[in-house]
Amino acid sequence: MLVVMHASATPADIQEVCDAISALGFQSLPMPGAQRTTVGLVGNDRRVDGSHIEALPGVSEVIYVSSPFKQVSREWRKDSTLVAIAPGVVFGGRDVPIIAGPCSVESEAQILAAARAVRDGGAVALRGGAFKPRSSPYSFQGLGKRGLELLQLAKRETGLAIVTEAMDDEGARLAAEYADCIQIGARNMQNYSLLKTVGRLRKPVLLKRGMAATVEELLLSAEYILAEGNDQVILCERGVRTWDPSSRNMLDLNSIPTVQKLSHLPIVADPSHGTGVRDKVTPMARAAVAAGADGILIEVHPDPNRALSDGAQSLFPEQFVELVRQLRQISRAIGRDISVLPGQLPRNA
Amino acid sequence: MLVVMHASATPADIQEVCDAISALGFQSLPMPGAQRTTVGLVGNDRRVDGSHIEALPGVSEVIYVSSPFKQVSREWRKDSTLVAIAPGVVFGGRDVPIIAGPCSVESEAQILAAARAVRDGGAVALRGGAFKPRSSPYSFQGLGKRGLELLQLAKRETGLAIVTEAMDDEGARLAAEYADCIQIGARNMQNYSLLKTVGRLRKPVLLKRGMAATVEELLLSAEYILAEGNDQVILCERGVRTWDPSSRNMLDLNSIPTVQKLSHLPIVADPSHGTGVRDKVTPMARAAVAAGADGILIEVHPDPNRALSDGAQSLFPEQFVELVRQLRQISRAIGRDISVLPGQLPRNA
Amino acid sequence: MLVVMHASATPADIQEVCDAISALGFQSLPMPGAQRTTVGLVGNDRRVDGSHIEALPGVSEVIYVSSPFKQVSREWRKDSTLVAIAPGVVFGGRDVPIIAGPCSVESEAQILAAARAVRDGGAVALRGGAFKPRSSPYSFQGLGKRGLELLQLAKRETGLAIVTEAMDDEGARLAAEYADCIQIGARNMQNYSLLKTVGRLRKPVLLKRGMAATVEELLLSAEYILAEGNDQVILCERGVRTWDPSSRNMLDLNSIPTVQKLSHLPIVADPSHGTGVRDKVTPMARAAVAAGADGILIEVHPDPNRALSDGAQSLFPEQFVELVRQLRQISRAIGRDISVLPGQLPRNA
Amino acid sequence: MLVVMHASATPADIQEVCDAISALGFQSLPMPGAQRTTVGLVGNDRRVDGSHIEALPGVSEVIYVSSPFKQVSREWRKDSTLVAIAPGVVFGGRDVPIIAGPCSVESEAQILAAARAVRDGGAVALRGGAFKPRSSPYSFQGLGKRGLELLQLAKRETGLAIVTEAMDDEGARLAAEYADCIQIGARNMQNYSLLKTVGRLRKPVLLKRGMAATVEELLLSAEYILAEGNDQVILCERGVRTWDPSSRNMLDLNSIPTVQKLSHLPIVADPSHGTGVRDKVTPMARAAVAAGADGILIEVHPDPNRALSDGAQSLFPEQFVELVRQLRQISRAIGRDISVLPGQLPRNA
Repeated sequence: MLVVMHASATPADIQEVCDAISALGFQSLPMPGAQRTTVGLVGNDRRVDGSHIEALPGVSEVIYVSSPFKQVSREWRKDSTLVAIAPGVVFGGRDVPIIAGPCSVESEAQILAAARAVRDGGAVALRGGAFKPRSSPYSFQGLGKRGLELLQLAKRETGLAIVTEAMDDEGARLAAEYADCIQIGARNMQNYSLLKTVGRLRKPVLLKRGMAATVEELLLSAEYILAEGNDQVILCERGVRTWDPSSRNMLDLNSIPTVQKLSHLPIVADPSHGTGVRDKVTPMARAAVAAGADGILIEVHPDPNRALSDGAQSLFPEQFVELVRQLRQISRAIGRDISVLPGQLPRNA
Repeated sequence: MLVVMHASATPADIQEVCDAISALGFQSLPMPGAQRTTVGLVGNDRRVDGSHIEALPGVSEVIYVSSPFKQVSREWRKDSTLVAIAPGVVFGGRDVPIIAGPCSVESEAQILAAARAVRDGGAVALRGGAFKPRSSPYSFQGLGKRGLELLQLAKRETGLAIVTEAMDDEGARLAAEYADCIQIGARNMQNYSLLKTVGRLRKPVLLKRGMAATVEELLLSAEYILAEGNDQVILCERGVRTWDPSSRNMLDLNSIPTVQKLSHLPIVADPSHGTGVRDKVTPMARAAVAAGADGILIEVHPDPNRALSDGAQSLFPEQFVELVRQLRQISRAIGRDISVLPGQLPRNA
Repeated sequence: MLVVMHASATPADIQEVCDAISALGFQSLPMPGAQRTTVGLVGNDRRVDGSHIEALPGVSEVIYVSSPFKQVSREWRKDSTLVAIAPGVVFGGRDVPIIAGPCSVESEAQILAAARAVRDGGAVALRGGAFKPRSSPYSFQGLGKRGLELLQLAKRETGLAIVTEAMDDEGARLAAEYADCIQIGARNMQNYSLLKTVGRLRKPVLLKRGMAATVEELLLSAEYILAEGNDQVILCERGVRTWDPSSRNMLDLNSIPTVQKLSHLPIVADPSHGTGVRDKVTPMARAAVAAGADGILIEVHPDPNRALSDGAQSLFPEQFVELVRQLRQISRAIGRDISVLPGQLPRNA
Repeated sequence: MLVVMHASATPADIQEVCDAISALGFQSLPMPGAQRTTVGLVGNDRRVDGSHIEALPGVSEVIYVSSPFKQVSREWRKDSTLVAIAPGVVFGGRDVPIIAGPCSVESEAQILAAARAVRDGGAVALRGGAFKPRSSPYSFQGLGKRGLELLQLAKRETGLAIVTEAMDDEGARLAAEYADCIQIGARNMQNYSLLKTVGRLRKPVLLKRGMAATVEELLLSAEYILAEGNDQVILCERGVRTWDPSSRNMLDLNSIPTVQKLSHLPIVADPSHGTGVRDKVTPMARAAVAAGADGILIEVHPDPNRALSDGAQSLFPEQFVELVRQLRQISRAIGRDISVLPGQLPRNA
């Protein structure tokens, strides 16, 4: 921690800051400059809450130098963490798994059609919501436990791994039972009770970035899960709030190299929510792989025009086939490849 | 719902949109313009999810005309809702209650000192966190149930109503038992499970706006609570995310007249979190009252320099006394007043 | 400048940073911490451009401690600067001048009616655009030089000082000739050529904050004007870009105490552009005065329903009279008052 | 234009809106709905300024259906516009030109070294600033006319086309004389006087998106140039303001497919300013090409550690060679290629 003093700070002000640092149990180091003095806090190995120091007389700014996160940091663990949610479906390595499927599980026919279509197109995992967080209480809220059973059925039929969202403790326990990876949605990124719950469940977690969360806040939320003993966390960039009405969200691909520098955890991108409209999903999925994403999460519906939710951003199965063909070539241009399941021969391989 | 077509849309495109509207069970009304055609959906009395129509050929944009919320709307209920959390502590009427207190309950001595100080300064309710949502899992997380007991003690000593945050179902049930009003924090504004829980508890709820939530999203979250049968909801503007590092958050006072136009629910402001630093709390609290806020939520600590959290944004008791004196005069300039408890004679009256 | 090293930085990395600092002509001071080393740059009295140091091996972050601005800073000049644009129209002192008038000068009848209305309501200066920056090249662009002549006529008739916008060098020279204060609009806040021009003209300047400018950037733009020898600069908060469609802009009143702490220059608020709709202008003008604004800039039109631009955010004359009455009481609640011209007896006094 | 009425609007309110539309010279069409009435304006072929209608009694919202831009729109011109700034350097076609070079022209040796390096790496145009917009008046402001002469020299030596920024009329005329394409920087995107000047100069213009400009505002600024008779405009995404301190700007690649849908003008990306730090330039340049950018603008310096500006975001020549090799493969994966000059054999071809 560094405490920057005002140019007009008096020696007494500086002494008071030094005393406050001592009171926290650390050593203080005043560094006089030509224009102003800075006081360093020496000897800490974790983030100190010195917010009250900000308000001492003569203090201009308090700067935190220590990283606020610990176990998620690449300084803590140098090698990238591999998160295997099922045999052959590994995030964080050379190959890039594709998770695809509809926004919501709507019926047995729909989820089976979707699962077959995305497996044939090259996906290795199936996404689909059984519990849906909806801004309005009057929108379709998902099939609940019945949805999870249908996902399990789709897994048996196709061999795809299952990723599905949980919104509360009860849902998390059910998702852990029926699925291979529990998704925590953007709206719950800072629902710390839920983060602790999935930390204790020891199932892989896909943690989506909140609507306006900084990368640091995303990593701190992941830290909650790791702090409970679960390091099987996949981060997900899904677009952030934007003031530009031309796009529902702004897919922040800068976050991909940023996360990969700061953390050992894998990060995937969701261009469907990150753009909100089908026309942009294909170019932005390509962009995400080119930027180095460790996986892609994408909405595909067997009949988007009849989808109960997110129809406008779901790809038609044929579009998905063509997209994965392009993603495969782009991934090879940067020395990677798109993951395939044992025995899977995608139509676009 | 209005569907705006491209200038180049064909008659077949327009027909397909009309058919899609019919399939939703509504009547369609094409309106040709000089430049392009718009198709209206007639006869709906609620928001229709027509997202798949956005992706039909020839469609440029889908515009929603119906308000997405219902019970929270001033169109639904014309008169302002009064939320009384305790005798004499009423939000939404002529008078403006002040809720004050420390960020966290830290000890019996601290919370009692704080309670006495804020009551003497003119507050009618005491705030204080027993369960603290912290970005980092390693920060102080609150005293839990012991904190609630101390709040109850402070209530007995001072007569102040109690407002305290809940982060999960268990916490909500405890808060309902020990406090007069359950606060839902910004990070949980879209934790729909928790919103439903507090909707069923039938206790007044103070719902904080999320970090980057629109006013519409805030109202939709409140709708979750009303939809469970609980209309005792106080909304709270607490500052939104900003790209300007000169301020921790940006207190969006525009939201106050906006909410008051759209909804019958009261809205209060939290200038402490809305600014993040003591120097700005006083001017922004004044601004909030001048803008028409139905209450003020403010951090006051008996000894801010030793606070376990949010020390930099907590007022000293003396500053609070002076602030309330100014707030009283400002409220009178706009035909309101600052609430007082029966028998309370604030030092600044 | 402080250079924060990675935990994994080697002694050679640290030495390279020290060498780079020496190459810039300054002394380096390595400060080893328990977790990582920070290297300070000692002896500078201005902002050093050390951006290339950020990219040296082992460097985690470069932190600037020196303030990037100089002459605008309160550290440079302790006392608030008074900017007098006309006799009795002084910004930065105890009293709060109100600048009011239509968005655009439309005709002689319109501007005279507006001028009389706002003077009777308590304004001491008249605003009105002769050159209008419009997002679309097909919108009304103002009357040009004829507009300036009409403003001068209105000044002769009413005694009000004149504030008008310039968009280029030619316009700035004309505005300097005809008006008392040259406004630089939000879109031109970083048009450095224009800032230098008005810096050399030695007329008071009202500099509006850009759509998404930080307070630091606003102050740096003002520094361009002061660096040319003109310290008669009034800053203006006029709302910033927002992702919330419920408001055209977000009036950032936090910037008022922030600017007043960092700079000796006065700051005024423009609630008309800061909200974009008439209903919110009144509460937000009150809020701005309560927050400590050194002046208010407000759109009033004699017949808003027929305005050529900004009709929706212009007050009716009667609304303005009532607003100034409230502002006067609020300003007195915080030890200030609303400015009046010699001999002016507003209807609401 | 569509005028959405409140549920509580009276027949008289609706009539007043119809009358206001008639007064504008258009036909009105009231459309009663179950919940509320919408009034359409029929027969317009351009954007009407109906802002005063927003404020009429009973009006809830005014929605603009007509596109606010005209000549830049793909509805106006279906085929993509090709902008050729020099023989073989064409934007908007199948091939993707790369513009590279240092932030500023610093010296003859520096610019010649840079030019040779980027030509050998595969660039077809050289960028370099002679006039630099700097936030602080005390930062290096460029070599001015001498810089332009050095760029011309570099062109003679290498055959590269020249792109350079102008900040005012004088600079624009000089840039038109010495360079092949005039860049308008982000800070001047809404400097309408300058846009009109470059519209009349009939030189290709590279127009950068403002810090927080919407895509619509970017297109409207381009409309200013086309309205003067110059359709040789290249748009540029260069990152927008972000609240996330982990990145200097947020490169908004969503804007690329958005612009390509709305407009016939080419759009390029600048990952150097879009990220602000070297580590992210390579992944984000790849992402931009994968998203479909019609060109890439990239900072390369022969010795970034000694650059006078933007050192941290400039690539080393070797990094540039490797980057263009990857970009070539990615462009081929989507059916495009990287442009080459006649006779140019890049090291990475």
